[in-house]
Amino acid sequence: MSELRQDPTTREWVILAPERAKRPKQQPKKRRAEELPDWDESCPFCPGNESQTPPEVFRLPISGQWQVRVIPNQFAALALNGDITKREVNPLFRKRAGTGVHEVIIETPSHNTTMALMAYQQVEKILIAYQKRYNTLKKNRQLKFITIFKNHGWASGTSLVHPHSQLVGTPVPATYYHQKFNVAMDYYYDFGRCLYCDLLAEELEKGERIVAETRRFVVLHPYASRVPWETWIIPKKHYASYDMFPATHLAELAMVLKDTLLCLYRGLDNPAFNYIIDTSTTEDEEDPCYHWHIRIVPRLTTIAGFEIGSGIYITTALPEETASLMKQVASSLPEGECLSFRQKA
Amino acid sequence: MSELRQDPTTREWVILAPERAKRPKQQPKKRRAEELPDWDESCPFCPGNESQTPPEVFRLPISGQWQVRVIPNQFAALALNGDITKREVNPLFRKRAGTGVHEVIIETPSHNTTMALMAYQQVEKILIAYQKRYNTLKKNRQLKFITIFKNHGWASGTSLVHPHSQLVGTPVPATYYHQKFNVAMDYYYDFGRCLYCDLLAEELEKGERIVAETRRFVVLHPYASRVPWETWIIPKKHYASYDMFPATHLAELAMVLKDTLLCLYRGLDNPAFNYIIDTSTTEDEEDPCYHWHIRIVPRLTTIAGFEIGSGIYITTALPEETASLMKQVASSLPEGECLSFRQKA
Repeated sequence: MSELRQDPTTREWVILAPERAKRPKQQPKKRRAEELPDWDESCPFCPGNESQTPPEVFRLPISGQWQVRVIPNQFAALALNGDITKREVNPLFRKRAGTGVHEVIIETPSHNTTMALMAYQQVEKILIAYQKRYNTLKKNRQLKFITIFKNHGWASGTSLVHPHSQLVGTPVPATYYHQKFNVAMDYYYDFGRCLYCDLLAEELEKGERIVAETRRFVVLHPYASRVPWETWIIPKKHYASYDMFPATHLAELAMVLKDTLLCLYRGLDNPAFNYIIDTSTTEDEEDPCYHWHIRIVPRLTTIAGFEIGSGIYITTALPEETASLMKQVASSLPEGECLSFRQKA
Repeated sequence: MSELRQDPTTREWVILAPERAKRPKQQPKKRRAEELPDWDESCPFCPGNESQTPPEVFRLPISGQWQVRVIPNQFAALALNGDITKREVNPLFRKRAGTGVHEVIIETPSHNTTMALMAYQQVEKILIAYQKRYNTLKKNRQLKFITIFKNHGWASGTSLVHPHSQLVGTPVPATYYHQKFNVAMDYYYDFGRCLYCDLLAEELEKGERIVAETRRFVVLHPYASRVPWETWIIPKKHYASYDMFPATHLAELAMVLKDTLLCLYRGLDNPAFNYIIDTSTTEDEEDPCYHWHIRIVPRLTTIAGFEIGSGIYITTALPEETASLMKQVASSLPEGECLSFRQKA
């Protein structure tokens, strides 16, 4: 049974999950997706090996061969069996039962691909699965926050190579969201407007950090990028939560996400990266000051002592320059690729 | 010229230093210190190669062969030539000139050692150098915060193998300090006492996370450790800043620091780690609510998407168990080692 503890000196939550020490780790090999087999008999996420995982909680399509499959994480950091009635009042030793969910979204039956190389329709199915699970899980009032994220490549912290994302539902809002929400709320209080809506308007006017603009999205390298080639995908229209975003627009998001990842794949030779859907709490879906977005963090450099110690990142790349490089990558791709970036916004 | 930019969505500062992309990186090799030569003709930090670095700003001893040498970082993230009179008022694009200092503390003439294996007297010299530079630099009113840290091993983000630490003086308080200070101030407001003093008292009473207690220090694994074997060294007496800590007590700190690192070295087979001296701002040295300490962060696991996305760390180790393991390591060492842990507190 895991436990959430709060660092009394920072109020950051930490999940202590000793069970996860037992999870298998495939050996890090720097190999391109294309060099791996399409099917690996030892991979628990490959078709035919479904019995090696816990039973699925969602799949697409409903019958026949699955294309996307969601399962509980066998080595879950959290589980829905904690006693949430207890309250630890000593501010030096605050804790919560490790109540929550931890799921794996298996993104494709194919062992050797990556989102950058998938068909748009396949990426759309993944985004639908994210939203469906979010929708189902938010009804559980024990879960206050749902983090959907992906680790790609060994340097990102992944332990299995088969393409997958993860979803973690926690009984506390994410520490980082808490910080971001407070900043957005201050801005709303000061200016009566959404910080992200204003940011988009000013970034589009300046243009220098914009990678692409589509009908409903802006792809940009943020002003204070923490790492080289950090990339955000922000919906133009204000929605606090990923859950509120109309499902009919996920097809466009799939194109934009795949095309963005393809530019990173081609421009940086299949870099390790993490992405995160930054969204509001399950209770604040109609919040006027938060605005969901996707944050892609390439892992080209190692987070070192200064960053860990001070919380200040040192980066060697200017976002204006990397945004320009990424645009060059996009325009150098064959005509049949990167379609969303070519469409008129 | 570098620049500090503030992320408008988190208010985190980022240092953009394109010049640093040019710095040399030695090849990562997983080799023990003992297997390297004691002197490397290509190493800019080895004796005889002093002309390959900028002129030293501090050394010990003053004449003869240096034992500790402090130099400006040749690929500095910050330099003291920025125009600090400008004020960027747009909250979406806050920036500061990259005014500051970035120094390297060369810890020893010996290329192939590490602090865990050094003589106590050598570690004391390093700690004296930290304090002397802090003292000198704090007089520059442009510098609001001084971060002293160390990267050891490739996974820690280091780029050179010769034992060294670094010092960065920034025109803004460190983001992470800001957060920690606010928590400590709230606690002080609520209880009228220092959070860290109370924490020490309660941890000593419980005992289960204490690794060692010496006359003036407590070594413990924090309640909400973010990573396995995270270790803090906290002075028992309240001092807000490392700078205020009496220089006459640095000999004891050197023993405790070396012995703590030796336990990690033996217990985890020379792990990569970062350490950071968490201290107050240069202007708040007599603060009643902050309390300096050293935070050692072993880099046994990779920071992954959930941590980056949510700010919540998942750890597989309980600090009660790792503290107990570390005590076992300490007691298994030969009698002539780990002297500070054996002394009666």
